[in-house]
Amino acid sequence: MAEDHAETEEVALDQDRIDAVLEAVEAGNSEAVDALLEPLHAADIADLLEQIGPGDRRALLRLWSHEIDGEILSEISEDIREEVVEALPREVLVEAVRDLETDDVVDLLEDLEQPQQDIILEALEDADRVAVEQAMAYPEYSAGRLMQREVVVAPEHWTVGETIDFLRKADHLPDQFYHVILVDPRMKPVGYATLGRILSSGREAKLADITEDSFRTVQATDPEADVAYIFNQYHLISCPVVDEAGRLVGVITIDDAMNVLDEEHEEDMLRLAGVGDEASVNDGSVETAKQRLPWLVVNLGTASLSAMVISQFEATIAALVALAALMPIVASTGGIAGTQSLAVAVRALATRDLTQANAARVIWRELGAGILNGLGLALILGVAGSLIFGDWHLGLVLGMAMIVNQIVAALGGVLVPLTMNRLGMDPALASGTFVTTLTDVMGFFAFLGLATVILL
Amino acid sequence: MAEDHAETEEVALDQDRIDAVLEAVEAGNSEAVDALLEPLHAADIADLLEQIGPGDRRALLRLWSHEIDGEILSEISEDIREEVVEALPREVLVEAVRDLETDDVVDLLEDLEQPQQDIILEALEDADRVAVEQAMAYPEYSAGRLMQREVVVAPEHWTVGETIDFLRKADHLPDQFYHVILVDPRMKPVGYATLGRILSSGREAKLADITEDSFRTVQATDPEADVAYIFNQYHLISCPVVDEAGRLVGVITIDDAMNVLDEEHEEDMLRLAGVGDEASVNDGSVETAKQRLPWLVVNLGTASLSAMVISQFEATIAALVALAALMPIVASTGGIAGTQSLAVAVRALATRDLTQANAARVIWRELGAGILNGLGLALILGVAGSLIFGDWHLGLVLGMAMIVNQIVAALGGVLVPLTMNRLGMDPALASGTFVTTLTDVMGFFAFLGLATVILL
Repeated sequence: MAEDHAETEEVALDQDRIDAVLEAVEAGNSEAVDALLEPLHAADIADLLEQIGPGDRRALLRLWSHEIDGEILSEISEDIREEVVEALPREVLVEAVRDLETDDVVDLLEDLEQPQQDIILEALEDADRVAVEQAMAYPEYSAGRLMQREVVVAPEHWTVGETIDFLRKADHLPDQFYHVILVDPRMKPVGYATLGRILSSGREAKLADITEDSFRTVQATDPEADVAYIFNQYHLISCPVVDEAGRLVGVITIDDAMNVLDEEHEEDMLRLAGVGDEASVNDGSVETAKQRLPWLVVNLGTASLSAMVISQFEATIAALVALAALMPIVASTGGIAGTQSLAVAVRALATRDLTQANAARVIWRELGAGILNGLGLALILGVAGSLIFGDWHLGLVLGMAMIVNQIVAALGGVLVPLTMNRLGMDPALASGTFVTTLTDVMGFFAFLGLATVILL
Repeated sequence: MAEDHAETEEVALDQDRIDAVLEAVEAGNSEAVDALLEPLHAADIADLLEQIGPGDRRALLRLWSHEIDGEILSEISEDIREEVVEALPREVLVEAVRDLETDDVVDLLEDLEQPQQDIILEALEDADRVAVEQAMAYPEYSAGRLMQREVVVAPEHWTVGETIDFLRKADHLPDQFYHVILVDPRMKPVGYATLGRILSSGREAKLADITEDSFRTVQATDPEADVAYIFNQYHLISCPVVDEAGRLVGVITIDDAMNVLDEEHEEDMLRLAGVGDEASVNDGSVETAKQRLPWLVVNLGTASLSAMVISQFEATIAALVALAALMPIVASTGGIAGTQSLAVAVRALATRDLTQANAARVIWRELGAGILNGLGLALILGVAGSLIFGDWHLGLVLGMAMIVNQIVAALGGVLVPLTMNRLGMDPALASGTFVTTLTDVMGFFAFLGLATVILL
């Protein structure tokens, strides 16, 4: 039995296999490459192609290109997809693309340049090409782009027996389907029955009697982020897509929704850190530098604001140089507090847990937390400052500045993303820079201002 | 048809409905509360309970507690679950819990205190209680806790017809199942067939001939994060869970895996920002302050390192006070660059796109990007500094310090998480503080050190 098991279960991609593949590539051993890649899942082969260097990648594709699986192309990261498509001989590419479901072809096309798009479109059979072109007519990042057009439908009056007979006779069924969608004569979806319910009901049972209680559809023009939210919120497995007239045009399955959710998370995390959404671990130095430079330049500008604030207090610093050493403490602790408040708010906005209904309460909560932590940190820093410098006035200045800046940080961290969201902008975009600028400027101003008043 | 549609399709939770519910709660109008909540999905009712204030929540539960759906309890955010469970009369709680699948009961129990756990365990029927207790015996965050124990299996020699007859006669089938798992006589899974394939094959077809090519199992003790990775990587819909002996003990479905993936993302994002993983937008001020204070105190300590570095250069600052105003520019731009590099690395580690195979190349890439952006920023800042202060020496110091710190930032951003990962720690944990400490300290040291050498 153990042998059977090994035959069906696929192996995972580990470092040993990557090393073995690279060795085979260097030796130019085409058979060894084939043998090593054959048991791997398309997703793992895509990962392998991403993780090896560009030179090895080209060599590998040359050695192995005679049997590439279309799924690998759709699994591969967008940033090297174009390179891989270019490296493949045209006939190999054509063969690979013909295997794919139309929604995967759409996903593949989206990231390619026009000439490559044309090669792939030409490779498709007529019916598939029309389907792909229709999908590409929907806006980018819409449900229409995400859906598969092959749907399994049944008239609403059918029985389980009629449905099973129909499925057994069907020429072509989608690779994945989990429901039979019931439609009215005008192709409007009116409910769906899970395959599990169909299988466990008698042949004479009516489909209409075994549909799910909960039934949702999305519009083809709905943003894919909304689709991912609906899948996650309502634990959907598949969801029919309708046009403006309410007619069924396709279906989205959970694996595509999970993919979108994953990309949305990545986008939030990278945007919050001031990196372009397309940043990938596989990008080269120049590309990476280009992606990051814009926010660094913005930060150079905002940091100059801090410098201007500090320069207003040069007389104070000249009178007591120790202030120069202490001022970053207040600013940096504010920066951390702002980042904390911001991360919670951005995440809650993304999961729609922060809404108009609780925004006021969350703002008050942040104010309260800012005051509490400000008091706590002020106590620590104030006492330490007083003892180290033997001057309780200095401790007082440190403590008071800390309280002010913690409050600014806590409020800024929630108000900046809420405002951006209200303005229809992605709250993750730019919030980080705004909030740390705020805490830096306020940190320096409060500390040096109080020092000028109290110490001089 | 439109009316039929409206009957089956559920309504979403919007601000108007929340306002109407709150009005009904204030008026003590129990029928209005019921009427407003009835058409909502359990997940939306859970969101509603999360978003209203604690007082309204208690009042709402009092008015409406006679027909609470068990699913609401399992949907509700962990931080208010205990409060809701406590607010419910015991008989309502017992009724609600009996509706749930055992994996949902496990999920519910995990976050409750012992006395509440006991009440719920007692409420269950004997068979369910045993199943729940067995699941709770697996480690926290393991596949065993995540799986449902109700599985749909068939002996490997069955035909499609035998399988359908068995399913039609089955007393109790899981709410959700997408495959029939083929097992050998010792209950070891040997493959699975999708319900779609079963439905579309003739009665005489053998199950063994229509199994999926790709088949994976997970161990009950595997961490749930690994399970989520496997679902996402291989686009699984369900995955059999086996014990150490390889025997089938349960099955995990994609909706649970999607939930884990979502939680992992949240954890990464909040940890990177220095917030405890359990941070929720619904926490009170005191709780929020407590979660955040530890990292703020750590930052107070690390910021003191910067202060110590600066204080070594007090003579330099006293000689040229403008340096005090300029020094945060170099430090803060380094902080942003470090955060950028860090976010990409932490994300790539989480998605397993950054591995031993490409670590060296990614480190070189970061070094290259750091040098390029360092040169670019040095040029801008150096020229601006020279012109504004009329001293090209100062511009040179600013530029050189910027280059040094951008390189430190880029390398630190990738080396710190890689090292933490190698040590078996979560790279998102603490990385942010480490990296910004590094860039602050190096930023101040490089700038003031170079200033001391070149300007004085």
